[in-house]
Amino acid sequence: MNRGLKFNRRWVLAGLTAALLGAPTAPTAVAQSDPLPSWNDGPVKQSITDFVTRVTKQGGTDFVPAEQRIATFDNDGTLWCEQPVYFQVAFAFDRVKAMAPQHPEWKTTQPFKAILDKDIKALAAAGDKGLLQIIAATHAGMTTDDFSKAVVDWTTTARHPRFNRPYTQLVYQPMLELLAYLRASGFKTFVVSGGGIEFMRPWMEKVYGIPPEQVVGSSGMVKFETDANGKPELMKLAKIEFVDDGPGKPVGINRFIGRRPILAFGNSDGDLQMLQWTVAGDGARFVGLVHHTDAQREYAYDRQSKVGKLDKALDEAAVRNWSVVDMKRDWKTVFPETK
Amino acid sequence: MNRGLKFNRRWVLAGLTAALLGAPTAPTAVAQSDPLPSWNDGPVKQSITDFVTRVTKQGGTDFVPAEQRIATFDNDGTLWCEQPVYFQVAFAFDRVKAMAPQHPEWKTTQPFKAILDKDIKALAAAGDKGLLQIIAATHAGMTTDDFSKAVVDWTTTARHPRFNRPYTQLVYQPMLELLAYLRASGFKTFVVSGGGIEFMRPWMEKVYGIPPEQVVGSSGMVKFETDANGKPELMKLAKIEFVDDGPGKPVGINRFIGRRPILAFGNSDGDLQMLQWTVAGDGARFVGLVHHTDAQREYAYDRQSKVGKLDKALDEAAVRNWSVVDMKRDWKTVFPETK
Repeated sequence: MNRGLKFNRRWVLAGLTAALLGAPTAPTAVAQSDPLPSWNDGPVKQSITDFVTRVTKQGGTDFVPAEQRIATFDNDGTLWCEQPVYFQVAFAFDRVKAMAPQHPEWKTTQPFKAILDKDIKALAAAGDKGLLQIIAATHAGMTTDDFSKAVVDWTTTARHPRFNRPYTQLVYQPMLELLAYLRASGFKTFVVSGGGIEFMRPWMEKVYGIPPEQVVGSSGMVKFETDANGKPELMKLAKIEFVDDGPGKPVGINRFIGRRPILAFGNSDGDLQMLQWTVAGDGARFVGLVHHTDAQREYAYDRQSKVGKLDKALDEAAVRNWSVVDMKRDWKTVFPETK
Repeated sequence: MNRGLKFNRRWVLAGLTAALLGAPTAPTAVAQSDPLPSWNDGPVKQSITDFVTRVTKQGGTDFVPAEQRIATFDNDGTLWCEQPVYFQVAFAFDRVKAMAPQHPEWKTTQPFKAILDKDIKALAAAGDKGLLQIIAATHAGMTTDDFSKAVVDWTTTARHPRFNRPYTQLVYQPMLELLAYLRASGFKTFVVSGGGIEFMRPWMEKVYGIPPEQVVGSSGMVKFETDANGKPELMKLAKIEFVDDGPGKPVGINRFIGRRPILAFGNSDGDLQMLQWTVAGDGARFVGLVHHTDAQREYAYDRQSKVGKLDKALDEAAVRNWSVVDMKRDWKTVFPETK
């Protein structure tokens, strides 16, 4: 007997039935193969699939209607790598280099001089104030359309210093599978990141399958103007509007999504309030943390790290029995195979 | 020959094919019956169906991929009635009455006294400053969850003074059909309103089929806190964060949606920049205005109105040949039949 054919027919029939009834596409059929092939079997993988099975089981005590299946993911360190510096910082530095010919004064002005001279010491001395100056110079004074083009250009040309890959290929294969698995199970997947919203949206649809309207992030002010020809445009201003980090994450979720997630994933203390807000809702909830434990394949860091510090949230996860991904133990592969 | 049966079979087959191919559900089949039965035949209805046909025709010069079919709608005066006062103002007044027992000082303090005494003259004298005080008192100092409950309660109990119906039954039947038609044609429908985002989200999914995450509006600041029992909550503060009106609408669209709409509908000068922003994009675009011309079935107002003033946008629509709905001429029915 041809079992494969039988399986395929059941699969197709389940899909058709779901389509006709308007139900989310066939979670039962998905569960028959492994939806998370890059995850090693173990308690974390099990906790994910158990949760999804419970909330999607019609008539079960933990069933959640599809429209309420909101899943939120931090980006830096959760969906893609964040070392040795946040990738948006790398983008800003690359922008300074690209824009330098139009700014001869940068050759003699800090913190720009430090970037052009690759003077790490002077750059460190410029501190947070210097970083804000860099962000203002590279992320403002242009239209949203022009900024978006600059971001897309950068994703195709820039390479990560250690892995020598485009940054958008340093996304986590197991998390890509998790996003796809959740969507196939009727979830709506959102990014809720401290990163800039205009920096993330231009590439996330292609890379994560997450459309711009499901990307929540920090933002600068934007102003509606008309250009010299009377054409309307949106100009990016050098003024911070919203910081989507820490206690800002539940605020951002409320503002942009307007519903409490039932699943949330992060990797640092900046995600703690998002996880607290998520589990404080009624009914079944899942929260997880990615713990970077793999210096060989990626990086190992937590309580002492300047980037992606994971300290309080790690303690709270232990106390409250949240799922903590041990990257070394739980992930079969880290990055997608290069094409 | 049973034409009905044949039609039904084609319809079902088209749906199945679309489901299998992952295509948006069968716009061709929809076009065979009238997707806008409450619209009278004429140039406006024709301009809508022509546009939808063009952008959904695979291989056509104006074809737009489904993920880019973003449609934005103003709410007050475009999707539901806005007379004799914005419904959110009616809500705020009703809240003052409901909250008065906890605020004995309101009996002697303006503008609250004016509402409790139904003293229209004193209320008018309080002006915009008074209105802001009322909004602050009724829209802040409580959690987002509690506010949401108050809104839902109001939609079930309050009645419009002229039509004696719940306010959520004073939505425009032709626009409900338009929203459904667009969604059936692969569009994602958004509200982009000057109204409060937290006032709109609790009922729009049920009434318009538009989920909270697709509702863009004005907002007050919200703060993440933990209550006496350590439970996280979001507290509404008496501070305006964003006014989604006029030039704020393209800004709000950029912030929340991150893509330019290809279709936008409004009814007042507060929608003008949204329409300008929409038509300034490349490719096929549709913008429309609802012109309130029907004093008998609804209201007749435009250039001189305090609520929903339509003056500059009406001029620009004439010059640029935008579609203007003449409510009296173009709509067969205005409100849905009561159940």
